[in-house]
Amino acid sequence: MSGEPPQPAPLVRDLAPTRPFIAPEELARRSGRASLIRLGANESAFGPPSEALAAMRAEIERASWYGDPESMELREALAARHGCHVENITVGAGIDDLLGLAVRAYLAPGDVSVATLGSYPTYAYHVTGYGATLATVPYRDDGSIDLEGLAARAHATRARHVYLANPDNPSGSFAPASDVRAFADALPPGALFVLDEAYGDFVPAPELLAEPIDPRIVRMRTFSKAFGLAGARIAYCIADRSVIAAFAKIRLQFGVNRIAQAGALAALGAHAYVADVVREVERGRADYEALGARLGLGTIPSRTNFVCFDLGTRARAEAMVDALLERGVFIRKPGAAPLDRYVRVTVGTESERAAFATSFAEALALAGANPATCP
Amino acid sequence: MSGEPPQPAPLVRDLAPTRPFIAPEELARRSGRASLIRLGANESAFGPPSEALAAMRAEIERASWYGDPESMELREALAARHGCHVENITVGAGIDDLLGLAVRAYLAPGDVSVATLGSYPTYAYHVTGYGATLATVPYRDDGSIDLEGLAARAHATRARHVYLANPDNPSGSFAPASDVRAFADALPPGALFVLDEAYGDFVPAPELLAEPIDPRIVRMRTFSKAFGLAGARIAYCIADRSVIAAFAKIRLQFGVNRIAQAGALAALGAHAYVADVVREVERGRADYEALGARLGLGTIPSRTNFVCFDLGTRARAEAMVDALLERGVFIRKPGAAPLDRYVRVTVGTESERAAFATSFAEALALAGANPATCP
Repeated sequence: MSGEPPQPAPLVRDLAPTRPFIAPEELARRSGRASLIRLGANESAFGPPSEALAAMRAEIERASWYGDPESMELREALAARHGCHVENITVGAGIDDLLGLAVRAYLAPGDVSVATLGSYPTYAYHVTGYGATLATVPYRDDGSIDLEGLAARAHATRARHVYLANPDNPSGSFAPASDVRAFADALPPGALFVLDEAYGDFVPAPELLAEPIDPRIVRMRTFSKAFGLAGARIAYCIADRSVIAAFAKIRLQFGVNRIAQAGALAALGAHAYVADVVREVERGRADYEALGARLGLGTIPSRTNFVCFDLGTRARAEAMVDALLERGVFIRKPGAAPLDRYVRVTVGTESERAAFATSFAEALALAGANPATCP
Repeated sequence: MSGEPPQPAPLVRDLAPTRPFIAPEELARRSGRASLIRLGANESAFGPPSEALAAMRAEIERASWYGDPESMELREALAARHGCHVENITVGAGIDDLLGLAVRAYLAPGDVSVATLGSYPTYAYHVTGYGATLATVPYRDDGSIDLEGLAARAHATRARHVYLANPDNPSGSFAPASDVRAFADALPPGALFVLDEAYGDFVPAPELLAEPIDPRIVRMRTFSKAFGLAGARIAYCIADRSVIAAFAKIRLQFGVNRIAQAGALAALGAHAYVADVVREVERGRADYEALGARLGLGTIPSRTNFVCFDLGTRARAEAMVDALLERGVFIRKPGAAPLDRYVRVTVGTESERAAFATSFAEALALAGANPATCP
């Protein structure tokens, strides 16, 4: 009648259960709150462009139709934006989806990937999840990426994948195009360079890698950050046709939501709104830097929509995340040394920034008064 | 400066490029039409419930926030619907996504899966894509599934996965719960039984497998068909906790669109509307059967939202798909013998059914008049 549940394949059976992120909804449930001020996931506090909202509202009427699995209209617009061909672009359900494709297509079990220790955890999740090995190099103490160290480690391990987020998450630091180009040239031949530019829209285009496409590099971009469409799950990558063709052999054909496709296409045209968001995010970063200075806390110079505050020790930083959660504010922190002494705070709206500043100052004062909770 | 593009991992390098489906958007582009009457992808012609449309419109305002990666509110509602626990449910971006998880988690490269030859092609796409081997058993000539043959093949190949769509796609045929239960009991121990119930909402619940959960079976359900949310990409599976826990180790945490989550939750409560859709689909099937009789074509009795018409030969069926496309009507056909002599037509609205009937009769008459195109 029933019987035992089957055993997973060895690779999955032996994986430790792990989740790259605990979401604010779950933290709210745990803490008994209906909602939190969301400054932990680097979502846009400014929402999508009105053009995207309108396009999505209209597209909802066609929600019973599958989206175009080729995302052709969107890819044509993206190809025009980036001066490449539609054959150089894959659209996916967020960069997380595209990172999974890049790992699955270019890393066999046992292959080595090199990344910065503590950088975007979902990349590491995929590397481990597909049975490859992640070799890491720590951040420099100032929060910048050790590009020379990464290149050396890639040679030493004969890495077939190298991951760089630029601008970086969770540090917020940034390497200019010339450094990224030199880094690409310093990598071992045959390695795929996975360049995660999720926060690239916060940096003027001339500071990023330009076309033509480098056949060794897959650049990933998203609608989740400056375009304000994180909940829609839509992103894309730009790469050599052969890389896009490899992804096409294994990607989920119908993985992208039709309403998201319409929203992304409209958002691409909303230049003025996105420029406003980028300026408002710059103002917010300046607010946070001033707040850090006022509170006597260092910050890492950021080119993203978040800022890291230096709490001095990992324990203090962890206690601060908890203390802010108690006050209804969701933030996150980097997991690995040397950045584990920081908390990472998304640029909110002006009123969210003010609410955060109040709670942060309050929690800091309390922590100072009660050293037992902050060793 | 540039260099050669990296080589994919051997498994992906050696995969033949393949796409489970060519979408109507691509067919429209090829044929120079702005749009087609969509009767080829078994989308709901009746749209989502108004409750779901309203919930999605409201949720668009929060599109800049990631969805809850645990889909907790939706899973609670689903657990109540199915009399199980949230720990028995994974929500994914369509059954395609969940099939990928089931293959990746339970089939190692070289393992064998057993399925009906010509059944849902995306399952085969995943099996091949993850380096496993698909062993097949043909449909019976009447379009029903050869359950005894599948079980025997599973034993002979020591299969670790067995796939059954019930109601089946592309045939539309259906095996009652008692047969499915007997089939599960006839499978080799240790095999995961992947039961795709994408069309399950068109069958009264008592005719489907009931709770309690059988630890050997993962049942897949979708919001794409009776609930009218194909474009939203949201589906779920019900299984033993250990199966759900295995999926949790590898699934895309943030893979589901926030607006889809809201729409699915609202759709679940729209009992009256969904019952109306099911009744209208029954009427449409009766229309199609009557049409077949009128045109002298056999049909396979269907429990889904589509009907297969017997054109006699594969060549005639292929020519009919092309002839309808020329008339602006998108349909599909089963790919493998013995069902390759059929065309598969989704139940449209009353006016779509009438338009299809006209084009179909016209194309048939023309084919009869010109035997060169229909050997």
